[in-house]
Amino acid sequence: MNVIGKKVRKVDGQELITGRAKFAGDYRFPGMVYGSVKRAGVPAGRITKIDADAARQLPGVVDVLTAADIPGPNLIGVLPPFDQPLLASDEIRYDGESVVLVIAESAEIARRAAEKVSVTINPYDPILTVDDALAPDARKIHETGNVTFTKKLIKGDAAAAFEGADVIVEGVYETSNQDHAYLEPETVCAVPGRRITLYASCQSPFHIRGHVAANLNLPASSVKVVQASTGGSFGGKDDVATEIGALACIAALRLNRPVMIAHERAESMIGSNLRHAARIRCKTGATKDGKIVARDVNVLLDGGAYASESPFVTMKTLIHAAGPYTIENLFVESTTVYTNKTYCGAFRGFGVPQVTFASESQIDELADKLGMDRLEIRRLNGLKAGDANATGQVYQQSVGLQETITKIAESVETSAPTTEDDRYLYGTGYACVAQGISNGAEGVDVTGASVQMSQDGSVLVGIGLTELGQGSRTVWAQLASAILGVSLDRVSVRLVDTDGVHDSGPTVASRSTTVGGMAVLKAAEEVKKSLVTMAGLMMKTDAENIELRDGFAILKMDDNARIPIPDVATAAYWTGFPLMNLAFSKAPDADYDHDTHQGDVYIAYNYGTHRMDVRVDKLTGQVKVLNHLAAHDVGKVINPLGLEGQIEGASLIGFGFAHMEKIRYRDGIIQNANFADYALPSIKDRIPTATIPVEDHNPTGPFGAKGAGEPPVAAAGAVFANAVSDAVGVRFERLPITREDIVEAIERGNHD
Amino acid sequence: MNVIGKKVRKVDGQELITGRAKFAGDYRFPGMVYGSVKRAGVPAGRITKIDADAARQLPGVVDVLTAADIPGPNLIGVLPPFDQPLLASDEIRYDGESVVLVIAESAEIARRAAEKVSVTINPYDPILTVDDALAPDARKIHETGNVTFTKKLIKGDAAAAFEGADVIVEGVYETSNQDHAYLEPETVCAVPGRRITLYASCQSPFHIRGHVAANLNLPASSVKVVQASTGGSFGGKDDVATEIGALACIAALRLNRPVMIAHERAESMIGSNLRHAARIRCKTGATKDGKIVARDVNVLLDGGAYASESPFVTMKTLIHAAGPYTIENLFVESTTVYTNKTYCGAFRGFGVPQVTFASESQIDELADKLGMDRLEIRRLNGLKAGDANATGQVYQQSVGLQETITKIAESVETSAPTTEDDRYLYGTGYACVAQGISNGAEGVDVTGASVQMSQDGSVLVGIGLTELGQGSRTVWAQLASAILGVSLDRVSVRLVDTDGVHDSGPTVASRSTTVGGMAVLKAAEEVKKSLVTMAGLMMKTDAENIELRDGFAILKMDDNARIPIPDVATAAYWTGFPLMNLAFSKAPDADYDHDTHQGDVYIAYNYGTHRMDVRVDKLTGQVKVLNHLAAHDVGKVINPLGLEGQIEGASLIGFGFAHMEKIRYRDGIIQNANFADYALPSIKDRIPTATIPVEDHNPTGPFGAKGAGEPPVAAAGAVFANAVSDAVGVRFERLPITREDIVEAIERGNHD
Repeated sequence: MNVIGKKVRKVDGQELITGRAKFAGDYRFPGMVYGSVKRAGVPAGRITKIDADAARQLPGVVDVLTAADIPGPNLIGVLPPFDQPLLASDEIRYDGESVVLVIAESAEIARRAAEKVSVTINPYDPILTVDDALAPDARKIHETGNVTFTKKLIKGDAAAAFEGADVIVEGVYETSNQDHAYLEPETVCAVPGRRITLYASCQSPFHIRGHVAANLNLPASSVKVVQASTGGSFGGKDDVATEIGALACIAALRLNRPVMIAHERAESMIGSNLRHAARIRCKTGATKDGKIVARDVNVLLDGGAYASESPFVTMKTLIHAAGPYTIENLFVESTTVYTNKTYCGAFRGFGVPQVTFASESQIDELADKLGMDRLEIRRLNGLKAGDANATGQVYQQSVGLQETITKIAESVETSAPTTEDDRYLYGTGYACVAQGISNGAEGVDVTGASVQMSQDGSVLVGIGLTELGQGSRTVWAQLASAILGVSLDRVSVRLVDTDGVHDSGPTVASRSTTVGGMAVLKAAEEVKKSLVTMAGLMMKTDAENIELRDGFAILKMDDNARIPIPDVATAAYWTGFPLMNLAFSKAPDADYDHDTHQGDVYIAYNYGTHRMDVRVDKLTGQVKVLNHLAAHDVGKVINPLGLEGQIEGASLIGFGFAHMEKIRYRDGIIQNANFADYALPSIKDRIPTATIPVEDHNPTGPFGAKGAGEPPVAAAGAVFANAVSDAVGVRFERLPITREDIVEAIERGNHD
Repeated sequence: MNVIGKKVRKVDGQELITGRAKFAGDYRFPGMVYGSVKRAGVPAGRITKIDADAARQLPGVVDVLTAADIPGPNLIGVLPPFDQPLLASDEIRYDGESVVLVIAESAEIARRAAEKVSVTINPYDPILTVDDALAPDARKIHETGNVTFTKKLIKGDAAAAFEGADVIVEGVYETSNQDHAYLEPETVCAVPGRRITLYASCQSPFHIRGHVAANLNLPASSVKVVQASTGGSFGGKDDVATEIGALACIAALRLNRPVMIAHERAESMIGSNLRHAARIRCKTGATKDGKIVARDVNVLLDGGAYASESPFVTMKTLIHAAGPYTIENLFVESTTVYTNKTYCGAFRGFGVPQVTFASESQIDELADKLGMDRLEIRRLNGLKAGDANATGQVYQQSVGLQETITKIAESVETSAPTTEDDRYLYGTGYACVAQGISNGAEGVDVTGASVQMSQDGSVLVGIGLTELGQGSRTVWAQLASAILGVSLDRVSVRLVDTDGVHDSGPTVASRSTTVGGMAVLKAAEEVKKSLVTMAGLMMKTDAENIELRDGFAILKMDDNARIPIPDVATAAYWTGFPLMNLAFSKAPDADYDHDTHQGDVYIAYNYGTHRMDVRVDKLTGQVKVLNHLAAHDVGKVINPLGLEGQIEGASLIGFGFAHMEKIRYRDGIIQNANFADYALPSIKDRIPTATIPVEDHNPTGPFGAKGAGEPPVAAAGAVFANAVSDAVGVRFERLPITREDIVEAIERGNHD
């Protein structure tokens, strides 16, 4: 019955397939009204007049709110000082800025009424590029200027080391904004009462609770946030749910009626954070043997109008710019700037896909320049246990990069590319990645979980992190099942209710299995103590002689001496042993110098090596992925099926990032805020990802596990670029590499 | 800002007064349907046929369920083996027995349809008295026979001690059934989903959860019970909510629609437990100095058709039959029997009012026989610290009976009775009571509570016990406020949600302040640890130098060195100190011989002495209570205002029990199942109770507190009987003593 490492179906799969799962948009309460916002419609300017008379006169309109109606500070954001208004009152910083909230008896009326609101804006010349934003005489988008956040990582002496390098490669790499494109747009439903309850499709319920309370000017203890079933998030519902959640709660308390706000697709793209577009200048120096001796990277991220999670994304690019390699001399500078565009924030991978594309491009270029094997140069420079990484952190365990390279190398002969023919070009790419697991030095890394056994032996797990589709509920259920010896169908994992668990921070950074799992483990271990103590009393032996397994408390020395767990639980209850525990788990403290970014950052890294074989149609630029191998060191695999899902899903996001997805702006206005014009992979574009797990035991994770949700994004994006470059014979320095780009590159090559 | 001992208004007072509190009947969900049951209508028999065709054909009827439709064992109860069916399938044991559940689009249709269900029953001669039930050839109401539960308490040698007594009094005392008569009848609302949620007006949510799960044949972890605001319970919603809760959940899952079941007043009286009617044979022997040397008591309780909480009530009568006196030789036998009447169970006081009436009557009779002062004889025999009580338990602290007698004695001159005149008789009564606090040896005495501080310093308290109007939420908020140094308006106490807290057993036995309060205290102390540790780091001092007070963390040696608690909480969160704790509190183990009922039972006793002055109208029998003093040793008073409310409310229930309330049966059918025919005190009958607190520090309660919710019921009932007897000059041996009884006694006296 031990389910650790077993292929387990999603514990919430059936409810999702059968439609029993309740999404925020499924909630209905008597008297419920609907909210819709009027957005600025121009990327920069100052509001001079708001006229909502026409909207108010529309039958079915219940209320119209402006910034003046917000009881609290009218500010949200990830880190104080919060820089984003719920409703803009004077300055407009991007096209999608919310200005007026209309509440009506139906969502349709609310939308039509919002259209009738007239907002007069005195426009400014929008600042639309990082260069314009950083120009010395640039208009300040925020009072603090146009630099959102800037940091340096300094290790060794890169400048000096370049002097001694035999070969140097240098390039400028660009990536585009990417939309999270979850199936379910952002939705919240606020229900007033003694305390206000917000049902939300969201990623970070505690973050929402804090901002709802602040903007209502109420104590946070008066606000309860309950996660509804959430149809994807990928970082995207990390802060926008805060905005619409606070607005819905304000309206609900004002009207004493339930209020739902559900974004339409266009709003989800325009009015919610995107992946940062990046420009990365990267320079790498190596000896003639291929040993990298120095790297110098300058990362410029376009953060859009508000800070959101830019500080953390900036740090992440800094720390990951070296890739999974031992480079003794590093200089990385990373800066996010404000522009008059949709704000950027968390997105699966969190800055790492951008820098990994640059880094892995340069590794290929270096190999080519040195005439080395592309995989061999990765192996040569790749991190091993005991090596110091980019921040100087040394792991003595769970550095499985080399094994992922070996696994990929071993695969070569079984997946050799077909030879070229007239119509098609064939190529193979490799990419390696290391991605830090958990928040680490970026923020606090704590979680809480509760495990409660009822007298019938069934188990309820609560946790402060969110299930967003990633399969975490299944992992948490497996952990509780394994510790308590009950079958998986006797374990239920509830979605977050902020009342019932520690503030566990955001569900980001691939931390659900590790940091979240450790809390579940800890809570389950405490309940186990009560059970084995009780069973010991019942069997007249010491607790340490009892194990919980297969639904029984079993005497270790005599498998036949066993008591059903429900009987033990009932006896424990009546004897007065606690059957519930709320555990708090804290990752080891990060020990870190924030000036040089040297020190211990993360509790672990996930390491990966990908190989991709592609066939490129010379006429159409169409890329067929023939083969995609993704080897990742994930520590102990808790659920192989879940791991496959994570690696396949993340790889597809990386593929979309590298090949298809591009937010197109014209004069600061997004031109393709719909799924007809914004190309992203559909089910027909699914690539044939094969997961190759490497299990290098991680002492800081439950049963030795590490997170896996993000790293494949970066590797898949980079490996696609390298594979296509290999096929076409041209280096691409900009993502996405679309079919048009490929055709153009082939044509240019033919003319050269 | 320390609120312990301060008069504090109910923290939920405003929501109740303004109608914001959400009762179970206030819940509305789309698609909700309503349930109503067809009841047996005869007190005993066997079902031969059920015909629901006419009901099914009524427009708006959605479903009809019988016993065959219950997935689980179709059994509920307090202790296994559970003896009560949700829906009767063959045997009918009382008139109010539920047989068929009808679900319809409205409550009105459901009721009308239920009336149309035809249940054919082959009737038995009902067994309607304890004597008939105990007759040797009596029909067995249950397979196990007609004795629900019987126990003995044996201390010393009562038979021998009577031999040496100078004076003996003996009598048979009877009390009637009493209805809980809360404003809000029993109501539940079941909402299906991934897990089923039951919103319930209830007293013991975990008890409900277990039975709902069992009867649904689902793991308990699939069931979530949330207490709705509850308009009174007094023990009455302890098990009936289980019955209608399970029925509602079964129907909700079957139909996949929300289901509400709300009792009408008649159902609340007929189909839900009552206070046990009792017949108590009591014999007390004393020396000529008034020292009681022996008591022999036989308690017979009419438990009605099912066991409910009869075992616990039986035990309680056993333990309390000696009253608050040191009696070295005791023999008590207490038996509950099944009859074909509405089942009896928990009711504020829990058997103690019945035996206290008998005991205090005998104390007066003894005093009269010996020519002693009625208060003096109580003082002489009353328990003091260090004395062994009825079970031989010795408390070295918090035995404040003597002080309550002293306070009452001191009051005499200020409230001397008016002399008699032609129309009126005047009398004064005294009564003492001791009532055990907490479940003690009757059951497990554990509770759980969670305390969570948000980064803004506001506090949310969760607990496994229910607020039923008794003011416990206010007490729990005061405790958290006092420990954490934040003002009361920053503390919110949520109603029970079984997901979020330990199974804390039922909210009974005056245990909310003590056993519940200790859990809140413990959880708050853990959060405090994080705060003072953090503040210590911030002030560069040790945690023990920090106190939390007035919203600040303050350096003990320098009142000016202070940091606002929200700043400390925010820093603690970001540093990784837990700001939430789920504490488990367990009362000291009871050490108890269940054969003789000797040993340690309760964590404490509440002791009280009442005085009542009455004026009796000789013509009408009307009793005017001129004066009612209620002195109770409650340990530390947490909220004097709440204590007054508890003592006044409990006294009024005792007054109704002693003077007005009587369930009238004819042939096993209740004749007065409505508030027109069932006389109970209205606001106009409110008696002028004055609360006199005695604060004898209790080491097992928070800040030294003890419970106070139940003891005044017994004392007020007994003191009324003694006061009226004093006025009329006749001993009454049956409660209630109605106006008719009084007039009759006076007339009889005039003829004698």
